[in-house]
Amino acid sequence: MGHLDQIEKTFRRLNRLGHLGSIVGWDEAVNMPTGGGQKRAEAMAELSVLRAEILQDEKLKDQFEKAKSEIDQSNKWQVSHFNELESSWKKATALPVDLIEAQSLASSNCEQAWRKLRSENNWKDFLPLFKKVVELAKEEAQIRSEITGLDLYNSMLDLYEPSARHENITAIFNDVKGFLPQLIKDVVEKQKGDSFIDQKGSFPTQAQKDIGLEVMKMIGFDFNHGRLDVSHHPFCGGVPTDVRLTTRYDEDDFTQSLMGVVHETGHARYEQGLPVEWGDFPVGTARSMGIHESQSLFYEMQLGRSRAFLKKLAPICEKHFTETTLGKDFFSAENMFKLYTRVRPGYIRVDADEVTYPAHVILRYEIEKSLLEGSIKVEDIPELWNEKMWNYLGVDTKDDYKNGCMQDVHWPSGAIGYFPTYTLGAMNAAQIYKKMDQDLGGIENRVDNNDFISIGDWLKEKIWKWGSFYSIDDLMIQATGETLNPKIFEEHLRNRYL
Amino acid sequence: MGHLDQIEKTFRRLNRLGHLGSIVGWDEAVNMPTGGGQKRAEAMAELSVLRAEILQDEKLKDQFEKAKSEIDQSNKWQVSHFNELESSWKKATALPVDLIEAQSLASSNCEQAWRKLRSENNWKDFLPLFKKVVELAKEEAQIRSEITGLDLYNSMLDLYEPSARHENITAIFNDVKGFLPQLIKDVVEKQKGDSFIDQKGSFPTQAQKDIGLEVMKMIGFDFNHGRLDVSHHPFCGGVPTDVRLTTRYDEDDFTQSLMGVVHETGHARYEQGLPVEWGDFPVGTARSMGIHESQSLFYEMQLGRSRAFLKKLAPICEKHFTETTLGKDFFSAENMFKLYTRVRPGYIRVDADEVTYPAHVILRYEIEKSLLEGSIKVEDIPELWNEKMWNYLGVDTKDDYKNGCMQDVHWPSGAIGYFPTYTLGAMNAAQIYKKMDQDLGGIENRVDNNDFISIGDWLKEKIWKWGSFYSIDDLMIQATGETLNPKIFEEHLRNRYL
Repeated sequence: MGHLDQIEKTFRRLNRLGHLGSIVGWDEAVNMPTGGGQKRAEAMAELSVLRAEILQDEKLKDQFEKAKSEIDQSNKWQVSHFNELESSWKKATALPVDLIEAQSLASSNCEQAWRKLRSENNWKDFLPLFKKVVELAKEEAQIRSEITGLDLYNSMLDLYEPSARHENITAIFNDVKGFLPQLIKDVVEKQKGDSFIDQKGSFPTQAQKDIGLEVMKMIGFDFNHGRLDVSHHPFCGGVPTDVRLTTRYDEDDFTQSLMGVVHETGHARYEQGLPVEWGDFPVGTARSMGIHESQSLFYEMQLGRSRAFLKKLAPICEKHFTETTLGKDFFSAENMFKLYTRVRPGYIRVDADEVTYPAHVILRYEIEKSLLEGSIKVEDIPELWNEKMWNYLGVDTKDDYKNGCMQDVHWPSGAIGYFPTYTLGAMNAAQIYKKMDQDLGGIENRVDNNDFISIGDWLKEKIWKWGSFYSIDDLMIQATGETLNPKIFEEHLRNRYL
Repeated sequence: MGHLDQIEKTFRRLNRLGHLGSIVGWDEAVNMPTGGGQKRAEAMAELSVLRAEILQDEKLKDQFEKAKSEIDQSNKWQVSHFNELESSWKKATALPVDLIEAQSLASSNCEQAWRKLRSENNWKDFLPLFKKVVELAKEEAQIRSEITGLDLYNSMLDLYEPSARHENITAIFNDVKGFLPQLIKDVVEKQKGDSFIDQKGSFPTQAQKDIGLEVMKMIGFDFNHGRLDVSHHPFCGGVPTDVRLTTRYDEDDFTQSLMGVVHETGHARYEQGLPVEWGDFPVGTARSMGIHESQSLFYEMQLGRSRAFLKKLAPICEKHFTETTLGKDFFSAENMFKLYTRVRPGYIRVDADEVTYPAHVILRYEIEKSLLEGSIKVEDIPELWNEKMWNYLGVDTKDDYKNGCMQDVHWPSGAIGYFPTYTLGAMNAAQIYKKMDQDLGGIENRVDNNDFISIGDWLKEKIWKWGSFYSIDDLMIQATGETLNPKIFEEHLRNRYL
């Protein structure tokens, strides 16, 4: 067996263990009774340790050195395959085991406490736990920075959005900050005159579920390789051959769960469309968080809030809500469009509309970057948060930690450097939609003709089937003709909302 | 770290990997879409290989040798703990890896083909696949026999029922063969005069599920450590801290699923009652298949078919089947008792009543024992099957492989030596019931007073909490005052059915 073969054997094992972890992780969120938690946590921790041991085996280091000469440089997939193997191995083995353990403990403590302390608006008791998480994240960034030569924030960002750099992101976000506050004001002003019928009444869970399943089917989710369930926090989990989507149902409000399902279906179709032949290896996985989010937001925001799509959605809802008294006018494309494109500055990121969402992301990005770089301390966060929320959204969050800086799970769980990928995803999605719109002679025409297949095929051909073969920039060039162009996102917002 | 500590660390890891395997195995039966099957099989196979590698690590051998001197012989739990560690390690490492692989492949091929071939009544194409499975089982028995000094059948039986011996089982079963055919005839004759109201109508799945959940709760299933779901073949899976029961619903017949749930709850309560402090190790697991089956049959047959229990069950059913036209008399304890104790010789083991069931087991036991010992060939099975079915049950299975020797999954999947544990379980259950009945001053009195707690407490105190601390014989002595006494089972059958 050659050295590459040996490396592949190891990664195949890691991937299969990862498969077990993914399914069990999904089970934990969807099925597990509380009493199963402790032993489950032990089993999952054991799996992490085992995977770390496999990755840190000295033999692997030797194999990587020797395998280099075995790579056929004319075989581009093999080259990319080897590079992705190597970079994922380097990322996974960068940290000493005691730091990994300390992080796991600190973030687990902080996240568990956060669930309770957030609801109590208790920043004071949250602070020491969160400080520990940030301290360890800074240590991690320091180590990664020494290995990669990147600066502190870039070395963390690189974990979620490989090759992305804060220098570009700051420039892009500054541009957004230049136009967004005024745009929000204009849209809110414009929408003041809008009249629409709001949802009212009870929307049975079973009907919502049936609608979700019908819409998933319509937009091409492959139920032979996945399913839809319920969890407290919706997510897209499982493995590419068996993608597990979740949602939650609120019987007073069907709109959120429904568009949530469309969002997760975007993630799922990306997973289902990844190159099967490379499925055991990093090159066969999704390119980045920002690209992943572009697929969910393509379906949820770009396609999902188009009038053509809502025209398809409305009769499906009307059909399943057999006991509603909302009437025909509620289920018109125009009314649904107004419902789904209402813009209102608010406290909570996950409830934010398409227009105000970037402001939530930018303020988090600015704060977490300053934190990692050491120009601010954890204690400074609330004041900065209030100031930025006021400046960007005109919202007052003073003394409201619950709906302010304690609202997200990311920081308590140790994910610092992740937030910008949401807005990069939104921007990628706008760019992809525009190019596809040209290529397909109008996406809304396709939707009018129930041709969702062409839409999925385009994405598969341009994005999904490439896995991590291309860099993010090359993937976007290949798909849309240029690297990320944030102007297209701005253009999209102006077109849709003004 | 001492050598025992090192062994414990390894077994803790094995147990945690086993946890993942159990949950994922449950998921496969309950949730997995077909398309997820191939990658899932790869992941599960990887887990098996990994566990085998961990068990076959040379270091473990050395640790077992050196740990012996560390055992505090006055600490009985530690002694038993070490013995169980060692014997499970020896059993797990007895076979060469290439045999394990060959068996896995052969049984997987045979079992998959069996699903289709059984429904086609196709013995001819099944034969070569099954011959391969038997051949490898004989090889396994040969190797195990050389290590243990047991003969071929005992060395396989020992995997499922440690320390059980076919010499005793044959004697017990010959005794049963002496009285059972006549008993069956007498009971059938007696029941000819019985009149009862049979179930008729449609029994909605949701109502059946609600009844099952209510009954599980009534008899003490801990929903903080487990749940009920649906699968094609009902089973009790998961882990002791999170036991996963399954059932299936037939809207024309609620009785089977309901008693099935009671049966699986018996298995589950045993798992939930095992000693938590030993949960990571073999000594903390269930004693044997025959003891496990005794707990499920205690609940399903001994307790579940008592008039007192059916008196509790009937109103629960009546309450949930709101649309039934069966009427009050159907839901009387006496009518339910007649329904649940009807005796009729039939083709299928899993559909058999309490009285004819042992005949199904004995014929399988006799055939599989002769097979392993080489006194018959696989080709001889159908004829032997027909002959024994005719002699023991008066049923003609000629040319009916589907409802004859191809009906069970055990043999195609390679489980040879397992069948006798069903009837040993039934006998243990009768003996346990009798002793508990004395200790509690009448179990039916307890049930009349809704005191299911005393019943569970007795089992926990006498059986569950001991895990594998005692041998099977000592466990039965400790619980009932004597080793297995098959006369109690015969007595039970005569009392209930004549």
